[in-house]
Amino acid sequence: MPYSTITINTPPPYLTLSSSEHLPTVLTVAGSDSSGGAGIEADIKTITAHRCYAQTCITALTVQTPVSVFDVQLTPKKIVSGILEANLRDMKCDVIKTGMLTMDAIAALNDRITAIPVSERPLLVVDPVLVATSGSPLAGDELVAEIKEKITPFATILTPNIPESFKLIGEERAIDSLDTLYKLAMDVREACNCSNVLIKGGHIPWSGQLEGDNQRYITDVLLLGDSDKFIVYKGHYSETTHTHGTGCTLGSAIASNLARGYSLAQAVYGGIEYVQNAVSVGCEVTKDSVKENGPINHVYAVEIPLEKMLTDECFSATEVIPPKPNSVIPKEMPLMKKSFSQYLQNHPKVKPHWDSYIKHDFVRQIADGTLAKEKFQYFVEQDYSYLVDYGRVHCIVASKIPTLDDMEKELMMVAGVRTEMDNHKKRLREEFGVKDDSYFEQITKGPALKAYSRYFNDVALRGNWQELIAALTPCLMGYGYALYHVEDNITTTDPVYLDWLAVYSSKEYRHHIAEGERLMQHVLQTYPLESLDTLINIYADVCELETKFWDAALNYTKN
Amino acid sequence: MPYSTITINTPPPYLTLSSSEHLPTVLTVAGSDSSGGAGIEADIKTITAHRCYAQTCITALTVQTPVSVFDVQLTPKKIVSGILEANLRDMKCDVIKTGMLTMDAIAALNDRITAIPVSERPLLVVDPVLVATSGSPLAGDELVAEIKEKITPFATILTPNIPESFKLIGEERAIDSLDTLYKLAMDVREACNCSNVLIKGGHIPWSGQLEGDNQRYITDVLLLGDSDKFIVYKGHYSETTHTHGTGCTLGSAIASNLARGYSLAQAVYGGIEYVQNAVSVGCEVTKDSVKENGPINHVYAVEIPLEKMLTDECFSATEVIPPKPNSVIPKEMPLMKKSFSQYLQNHPKVKPHWDSYIKHDFVRQIADGTLAKEKFQYFVEQDYSYLVDYGRVHCIVASKIPTLDDMEKELMMVAGVRTEMDNHKKRLREEFGVKDDSYFEQITKGPALKAYSRYFNDVALRGNWQELIAALTPCLMGYGYALYHVEDNITTTDPVYLDWLAVYSSKEYRHHIAEGERLMQHVLQTYPLESLDTLINIYADVCELETKFWDAALNYTKN
Repeated sequence: MPYSTITINTPPPYLTLSSSEHLPTVLTVAGSDSSGGAGIEADIKTITAHRCYAQTCITALTVQTPVSVFDVQLTPKKIVSGILEANLRDMKCDVIKTGMLTMDAIAALNDRITAIPVSERPLLVVDPVLVATSGSPLAGDELVAEIKEKITPFATILTPNIPESFKLIGEERAIDSLDTLYKLAMDVREACNCSNVLIKGGHIPWSGQLEGDNQRYITDVLLLGDSDKFIVYKGHYSETTHTHGTGCTLGSAIASNLARGYSLAQAVYGGIEYVQNAVSVGCEVTKDSVKENGPINHVYAVEIPLEKMLTDECFSATEVIPPKPNSVIPKEMPLMKKSFSQYLQNHPKVKPHWDSYIKHDFVRQIADGTLAKEKFQYFVEQDYSYLVDYGRVHCIVASKIPTLDDMEKELMMVAGVRTEMDNHKKRLREEFGVKDDSYFEQITKGPALKAYSRYFNDVALRGNWQELIAALTPCLMGYGYALYHVEDNITTTDPVYLDWLAVYSSKEYRHHIAEGERLMQHVLQTYPLESLDTLINIYADVCELETKFWDAALNYTKN
Repeated sequence: MPYSTITINTPPPYLTLSSSEHLPTVLTVAGSDSSGGAGIEADIKTITAHRCYAQTCITALTVQTPVSVFDVQLTPKKIVSGILEANLRDMKCDVIKTGMLTMDAIAALNDRITAIPVSERPLLVVDPVLVATSGSPLAGDELVAEIKEKITPFATILTPNIPESFKLIGEERAIDSLDTLYKLAMDVREACNCSNVLIKGGHIPWSGQLEGDNQRYITDVLLLGDSDKFIVYKGHYSETTHTHGTGCTLGSAIASNLARGYSLAQAVYGGIEYVQNAVSVGCEVTKDSVKENGPINHVYAVEIPLEKMLTDECFSATEVIPPKPNSVIPKEMPLMKKSFSQYLQNHPKVKPHWDSYIKHDFVRQIADGTLAKEKFQYFVEQDYSYLVDYGRVHCIVASKIPTLDDMEKELMMVAGVRTEMDNHKKRLREEFGVKDDSYFEQITKGPALKAYSRYFNDVALRGNWQELIAALTPCLMGYGYALYHVEDNITTTDPVYLDWLAVYSSKEYRHHIAEGERLMQHVLQTYPLESLDTLINIYADVCELETKFWDAALNYTKN
């Protein structure tokens, strides 16, 4: 029988591959919504979209669609306790998020939490699922009393909507101004014996009159217990029926942001932004016959992390919420300030790779003229193809780098790369008899280049501009240093080799290196130093990729 | 009490916002793994990471951690049937994926599937969870027989590992060559009465001797029933204990890829690539005391869609799996070939926005000199800040556009943008008395500009280069057309206004427009035309954003 083979590209030593990724963990204790829009399904989707790791404790199975609940099966107590015990014993748990709770789940959770010493307890986000988005009450008075006694006192934050707030304080009220909302938040806090309360105003969009314009708003109020301060989150009211699962989703988004280390005010901001985007986008997943209510779109915002929302001026939060301070100052700072490049090149993780790179036999063989021409041709071809990617990554840096001056310099770099490419074209034409221009477009990437390109891809996708610079710099610098190492031993008389050697020991190239040094100092000044390890890993990885690139040329044989 | 207000940025009319996003749907029928690494938890994470919508039918709850299963609670038949009935009646379902099945679940699923007319049945991916990754058998002989009778005959693809294959064919064998694997696949197909079988070789890594080198490989074999063809997927063997959940994850990844419309060979390729990356990355989520086995990392590959793996030459699949053909040729093709720009500008969805944009009162008031100077200054400031973003997006296009010639032209565009910015600086200095250079860096983005910038962000994040060009072009073209509309009615004598008008009616600018026209034809030739609506939406959205940008300037008043 015919067959073909496909090689799976297990990744090269990527940015995140150096070690197991530390994923913040969130345990959701809630019911399952088989239709996927709410409950633990919405929780897992949300937690995953926030790049956190979800664990579950399913308190009940439901048969439901976005329009109604048809059947419910509560989970037996021994399973609920068993799950909580196993998860809290064997799994890391940064944050617990609760949704729909049963009497058994309340008791089991209270048992487990109180068994953990206060200082080691996970944070707890309590979404008191007492009244569904559709308005129907989910929980009886007995359950409300149990939650208030056994769960909310341990809550880091409690997130009731307005009808739920009424249940928690035991009375209904007119909510018609910010002051009434503030009062409600304070009374909920009092009744539930917890310190931070977010009252979700989704169910009562404020009319325009109150705000002095004609738009409708959703107003969420966060009462921060520690500072006795309110934060008002003002969002646009969206005319949509895609609201199934908003409550669960907000709770999980807040929990994920807390697990990532954001403050309460930031976590709530990110959560509301995530939910409102998910509502606005919506998704079509119900049959045409089901039109009343649809789920929100959990996957929409996967690529917009809270970090971006907190720092990008397109989002309004930059005005209110200060970014996280650069809290870590490494003790090697004086050394790094002197020359960050040299600090990196001498770092124990980098040095072995840096040394094999800049003292590579490939360059030595060019210098003494012993390198076989076919190996040089292979190198030139691969390097030409590499330079295309290298130039493109500089374009990405130009699109991200903060100052216009640096942006311009990056674009000059691209121009420099074009010159190098033209040099290679000239070599291939004059020395290796290439005639057809299409030859250059058709160069096939070898394995070493593929690995290098994918590495660039990965950093470009996930990294910030500083990390991109760290990935680009070893190439720029290493060629200069490699030449420096052989310049007293150049014995070749081959004009092609002499020409290649001349480029990387030229004054112009030294100027580029100085420019690279300067840029690395700029990286040092702006990079969040608690992630310094990431920069070091990138620098080491790329030195290794450079070494392998020259290895590949040296080992090349025409077959 | 003190309070502060944060405005939530409900998104501007984004790329995906025009209507509810169509999310492909996958229903997973499987057990729950409370520790989150396998079962429906792994399924939901995987499906979400593939931008699909997950629904669930939980066949059993387990108390487990990556190392052992402590307790199991089977879901009652009425709940399983109820869920399948509700989901298949009310929710869209593109693909069903099965994992751990119970006798009740097998019967209920068989009932439901056979009740759907053959032509309307969802695709079915069957991961026969009979033997866990750790080696312990999960299912008795009776269950195996039921699965073979009631489930596998409906399978689009069946994905057993080698021990499971033995269970399905009822005997153990030596697997020591590709031929023995081929034979196994054919016998499983025969025994299970289904057409496509993927034998997962994860449990038997091939030794180097067989392959002629010293590396160890994992060899998965796909038997494609329709063409009686084998595809061999050859991956590197990874020394890791992070393998908990690989089987569930592969099944869900294949199901998600199928739901997205990929062929079986492509879906399996993408699935294996996803799982092997997730295994290699791993994640640290267990307590230090639990070291034997850890979960794989589901969120790692969120940003690398299969489309990229199938088209990017850094991945090997480009050599084997042909990309999807451009199957749709719209009937308006002749019109589009003549001028794609004009086709777009006259499209019913675009035309109202294009017209309000290019016949805007802002330009008319400049032409007749009635525009208040403060409004013009506001415009110039906002436009300066806009141009920074506009230039950056051109850099992103340069990083993505296929040919080097086009890349170079994009960079020339950036240079042109810098000239426009310098013009604005000059205006602000000479006409509006700006002295300090830091003034330009400190311009605050108004709401219209924020919306526009976020739109650019969004397209840059999610879109391909053609979509980016479509987002950039209305600005370039519209200014030219707007000037063309007023050029016979220029009565202003104000040199600032005359100078601004002159820029956009200059020969040089017309040359830029011609370049833009050319580039749009290039977009037409390369864009997947089944997504033409996306391009049209972007064009319309950006014309609207341009209109609002001028509205904002016209409505500006110093307060």
